[in-house]
Amino acid sequence: MTLQTRLHHHREQFPALANKVYFNYGGQGPMPQKAMDAISQGQAHVQHIGPFGYEAYAWLTQEKQAVREAIACELHAPPESITLTENVTVGCNIAMWGIEWHPGDHMLLSDCEHPGVIATAQEIARRFAVEVTTCPLMATLNEGDPVTVIAQHLRPHTRLVIVSHVFWNTGQVLPLDKIVEVCRKNDSLVLVDAAQSAGLLPLNLSELGADFYAFTGHKWLCGPAGGGGLYVRKEVRESLHPTFIGLRGVVVDSQGQPVSWQADGRRYEVSTSVYPLYVGLKEAIAIHQQWGTSQERYQQICHNSEYLWRKLVALPDVKCLGNAPPESGIVSFQLTQQQPQASLKLVKFLESQRIFTRTIADPNCIRATVHYLTLESEIDFLVEEVQKFCQ
Amino acid sequence: MTLQTRLHHHREQFPALANKVYFNYGGQGPMPQKAMDAISQGQAHVQHIGPFGYEAYAWLTQEKQAVREAIACELHAPPESITLTENVTVGCNIAMWGIEWHPGDHMLLSDCEHPGVIATAQEIARRFAVEVTTCPLMATLNEGDPVTVIAQHLRPHTRLVIVSHVFWNTGQVLPLDKIVEVCRKNDSLVLVDAAQSAGLLPLNLSELGADFYAFTGHKWLCGPAGGGGLYVRKEVRESLHPTFIGLRGVVVDSQGQPVSWQADGRRYEVSTSVYPLYVGLKEAIAIHQQWGTSQERYQQICHNSEYLWRKLVALPDVKCLGNAPPESGIVSFQLTQQQPQASLKLVKFLESQRIFTRTIADPNCIRATVHYLTLESEIDFLVEEVQKFCQ
Repeated sequence: MTLQTRLHHHREQFPALANKVYFNYGGQGPMPQKAMDAISQGQAHVQHIGPFGYEAYAWLTQEKQAVREAIACELHAPPESITLTENVTVGCNIAMWGIEWHPGDHMLLSDCEHPGVIATAQEIARRFAVEVTTCPLMATLNEGDPVTVIAQHLRPHTRLVIVSHVFWNTGQVLPLDKIVEVCRKNDSLVLVDAAQSAGLLPLNLSELGADFYAFTGHKWLCGPAGGGGLYVRKEVRESLHPTFIGLRGVVVDSQGQPVSWQADGRRYEVSTSVYPLYVGLKEAIAIHQQWGTSQERYQQICHNSEYLWRKLVALPDVKCLGNAPPESGIVSFQLTQQQPQASLKLVKFLESQRIFTRTIADPNCIRATVHYLTLESEIDFLVEEVQKFCQ
Repeated sequence: MTLQTRLHHHREQFPALANKVYFNYGGQGPMPQKAMDAISQGQAHVQHIGPFGYEAYAWLTQEKQAVREAIACELHAPPESITLTENVTVGCNIAMWGIEWHPGDHMLLSDCEHPGVIATAQEIARRFAVEVTTCPLMATLNEGDPVTVIAQHLRPHTRLVIVSHVFWNTGQVLPLDKIVEVCRKNDSLVLVDAAQSAGLLPLNLSELGADFYAFTGHKWLCGPAGGGGLYVRKEVRESLHPTFIGLRGVVVDSQGQPVSWQADGRRYEVSTSVYPLYVGLKEAIAIHQQWGTSQERYQQICHNSEYLWRKLVALPDVKCLGNAPPESGIVSFQLTQQQPQASLKLVKFLESQRIFTRTIADPNCIRATVHYLTLESEIDFLVEEVQKFCQ
């Protein structure tokens, strides 16, 4: 079987890909049918054995552990370092609120972070008299060194640095190991927003050294919306306090009184979740691993994004944000004819042709994301339609 | 059709009830098949139209609003006062962390609150030098007045009082209107843990006057696990700050920068959830409403709990915690023969007979919960098996 034939077969597992041309993997990944079936079967199974009783409790305990291990395997991290969360933002909040802030402390964000993270930083600043500043990393997409910029913006009291591993707007991949190095020298913790990296980049969190790595299963991993997680480095676990707290995070005595935290990442988990979802996420991860290693998938993503980038830069009316082929699956571009709301009009035109992309507000651009699942014929079609729109 | 025939037909919608005798409604309610189907169909629909794009966004916006309205209708509260959460505990955490605590402030809990809430109170005490005390309401099940006890434990600096509407251990229903009255005179806010009341009691939150009412859809409302909410009284919304923060809670400007909170209960919502779940919860609520009004359902619940209570008190080896028929669906009882771990052994024996109950640690007892869905024949069978175990 040729690679193309194999890919066509593999794609048949993803119903969302059957009736459209999809470039929104960075928004939400298409779910494999098996993952959806696993969730439905999980729901039915819980009803059959419970829903509340010893057998049901044993089942959900096992499924929580199984998805924790599947995630840990994919991210090369110890399972006990993984907290299951609803999404990336909750993971960021756990890290941001869990630090013991003092007045005058400083928090440094890149200028490409997500509005949810920015708003959380602002609220922490207000409550604890912490100073929040941003450093200009967006401009380092084509020239300059993000590590140098971050180093220049660190202060003696910088307690936390927040950066994305892959910028959701420009697609730039940050040299995280070097950023961690410079931050650690300053005794600053590093929280990574991994919304666009988990499932895209081959990851080894144990080696990477970031203190907190907040990710989701529903984008590049193609799991269900509502399932994500947070990696907390073992060495900082004791000093990161749980904030939102519930029965899943505590150890109770024989009287049901909370007496300590769970020893591992469960300490940041709160209470009842959609447990059958975990079966779906585990299934989605398994399907990617059946396709290839994370390194092989990443190579294919880069091959696809380079193919798209080269075709886009060849168009007269299009300017790609990056001057070189992307190191991620994110290809962001602008229309050079500056008509009002041109990006929005193009994205809506494309969706009317069953081509799914999105606009980004800052910098004002159109974002197309390619996965290893993407076909060259899909990219050709996208580029043709962009060209048609511009004419 | 007789009432019994109608009930048998109605129960057929709940697959979990087909192969067991269920008394764990207070742990997790059985889901109607239609609710499970709605979730599966919702998942498939999102894949068909997206999963990420304008049409998918419009769909999930509509479904969020629809479930908010369905919940508001059931609780008699304005839809804009409802925040969608993952579970009761998250709702409690939003209220508890959103208050601007000052050193020396006081938080008062009843002695029947859930471990998750207790642990959260302890962490807030540690972080903000707040004093947390409990007041002995468990003892008021059979004598004394909980309102008087609370009044005696209020202090000038009591900022927050936390009580359950229905105690999860003893099943006692608190006179919440009177508790709110005495707390408001003291300028103390009232957070209600509604885990055991939403879907059990007929509720009118607009009249009740509690400031915060945290509930879940997966117990008495028989919705999916992972879907709950928080009611915040309009008058206190501006002073309750969001803590865990994400894109769902903020308003962004044209550059994507957060500039303010959502005007309504959405300000406490964080980010991506299992949106198809909301369709399931909405469906579950509709099925209860098709059966009868919340008042009619409550009357049937009380009829069933009285029936169970009377049969249990007639057993020589059983002592019900309450001296009178319960005002809720919770019937908690003890075995008078004090063998080691007798409660646990009984619950395990019952589950081996496909009868689902649970143990409670404090007070040490067995909890059986009855819904309007419960059959008298199920109660008869439970009582027979308890009797058999005791012989």
